Amino acid sequence: MKQRIVIALGGNALQKNGEATAEAQKKVAEKVGEVIADLSKKYEIIVAHGNGPQVGNILIHEETAATKKAPAMPLETAVAMSQGQIGYWLSQAITNAFLERGKTAKVATIVSQVVVDKNDPAFRNPTKPIGTFYSRTDAIKLAREKGWVVKEDAGRGWRRVVPSPLPIDIIEKKSIIELVKSGVIVIAAGGGGIPVYRTKVLRKLKGVDAVIDKDYAAEKLAELVKADIFISVTGVPNVFINYGTKMQQPLRQIPVKELENLKRYNYFAAGSMLPKVNAVINFAKKGGTGIITNINNLESALSGATGTIVKK
Amino acid sequence: MKQRIVIALGGNALQKNGEATAEAQKKVAEKVGEVIADLSKKYEIIVAHGNGPQVGNILIHEETAATKKAPAMPLETAVAMSQGQIGYWLSQAITNAFLERGKTAKVATIVSQVVVDKNDPAFRNPTKPIGTFYSRTDAIKLAREKGWVVKEDAGRGWRRVVPSPLPIDIIEKKSIIELVKSGVIVIAAGGGGIPVYRTKVLRKLKGVDAVIDKDYAAEKLAELVKADIFISVTGVPNVFINYGTKMQQPLRQIPVKELENLKRYNYFAAGSMLPKVNAVINFAKKGGTGIITNINNLESALSGATGTIVKK
Repeated sequence: MKQRIVIALGGNALQKNGEATAEAQKKVAEKVGEVIADLSKKYEIIVAHGNGPQVGNILIHEETAATKKAPAMPLETAVAMSQGQIGYWLSQAITNAFLERGKTAKVATIVSQVVVDKNDPAFRNPTKPIGTFYSRTDAIKLAREKGWVVKEDAGRGWRRVVPSPLPIDIIEKKSIIELVKSGVIVIAAGGGGIPVYRTKVLRKLKGVDAVIDKDYAAEKLAELVKADIFISVTGVPNVFINYGTKMQQPLRQIPVKELENLKRYNYFAAGSMLPKVNAVINFAKKGGTGIITNINNLESALSGATGTIVKK
Repeated sequence: MKQRIVIALGGNALQKNGEATAEAQKKVAEKVGEVIADLSKKYEIIVAHGNGPQVGNILIHEETAATKKAPAMPLETAVAMSQGQIGYWLSQAITNAFLERGKTAKVATIVSQVVVDKNDPAFRNPTKPIGTFYSRTDAIKLAREKGWVVKEDAGRGWRRVVPSPLPIDIIEKKSIIELVKSGVIVIAAGGGGIPVYRTKVLRKLKGVDAVIDKDYAAEKLAELVKADIFISVTGVPNVFINYGTKMQQPLRQIPVKELENLKRYNYFAAGSMLPKVNAVINFAKKGGTGIITNINNLESALSGATGTIVKK
């Protein structure tokens, strides 16, 4: 029986040198497609992905060119749009990589709603900058009109900031399991998922403007589908401590307790490696194997030869 | 055993009085959700939908606000984005309608690629206007730069026109069947599907800027999933001939041969009722039941009490 793996790709990974045309991003997706086509011989695969630069551009377009007749879509709907966009590119790239290998693929992108808790402390302290830059005057006007929280962003202008709550459930989990069981490579929880919360009455779903960390969402997905392995794909072959110094040291096979200790001593940068480290820690604590590596080492990390590999 | 139905909703149906905010369209989607929740007791359901006004607005935003760093997405990717957007709204509305009935739903939106033939005569004669209006000068410049075909649009300015080829296959059909079999309400082939063709070498998939008629795509989907009933949802309870004249006559239960005869005598307008009539004719000829009705009469049309019902 094949092992089940969840792979979390960065949204930045699709934009080589910041090239953001559809053509350029599809080109990068081809490489991902090839890796996944090769892995599919041994594994049941679910791909989650980020959407930072893509949803950023969607919001810039939506906000800049909004009119009364063609109003801007809110962030939660923009995330859904980015899932269609990136899911399509990845899905097509995987299908074509199979065809190059003389095989046919079954691939499906599932538009995914990820449940967050309306009482998550993140909602009281929005920190994640999104969308276009505004002048101070415009930013304050928009804050008043739309109820946005805006902040000055490192001298570059004013931006909207949104909460980044934790994922607690994925609405489409049963469909995802159904498909992966029947041999389909599934793309899901794109961009950390469309953030929704449950209303008090009837527990109905309601979209909310927020950004869910894509590693946290992908790890939650890995738990829900009972994956054996969760892999966070990044720019380096493995995690380092003291990166770029004489003390630089790669982390290879590491027990989860040890990684937690390093985390406690602030070895990992909040904006970049920390969410990945947190995600693999969470997954390893539940009994699975957590891996951090880059796309070129994905296969060898799964065989244990490279990557940072975290177990209980 | 439940009968399997494919419902084709118009993209216009989500925009009441042209209100295009996400909030307004979600509100309209609630009604659709309720009808589908009620139907799901008796039927396995697949929902296809149009995207005319939605993808139009996406293109307007993408084209108007494009920069070098945030370039405009092409039409085929914009269709994928509209599938995420509308699929999310419908999926959430259906889920919430179930919760209102004290039940839980399984709903999934599948991002769908629909195969067209690169030799379809439509590619030699693009007719479908899309995106924003341009001045003559700008339109001719864009035509040269991007290889677009542009045309003057009824005195309102210049627009790009794209081909509208016929659907011949749906890449994700197996996943759609798998899900619907396991009790999931599936949303698929949105906006007629992301148009792709197969390359000569290896039959790889490649996106192409075109618009596939949503009724034709939904009917093709109904064939591929072996649906019992295909329903094209429109603004009227049934098809009329000589509509608005003294000779006005509703079409109710009608054999497919008779409907074909009426079609031959040009009883149906090319831009509006004709594609729906063609779609139900195609489906009935393959042995299924084709229905044309509006959202309020969906349930009663399925029981035979209203709607235009076409059989062999």
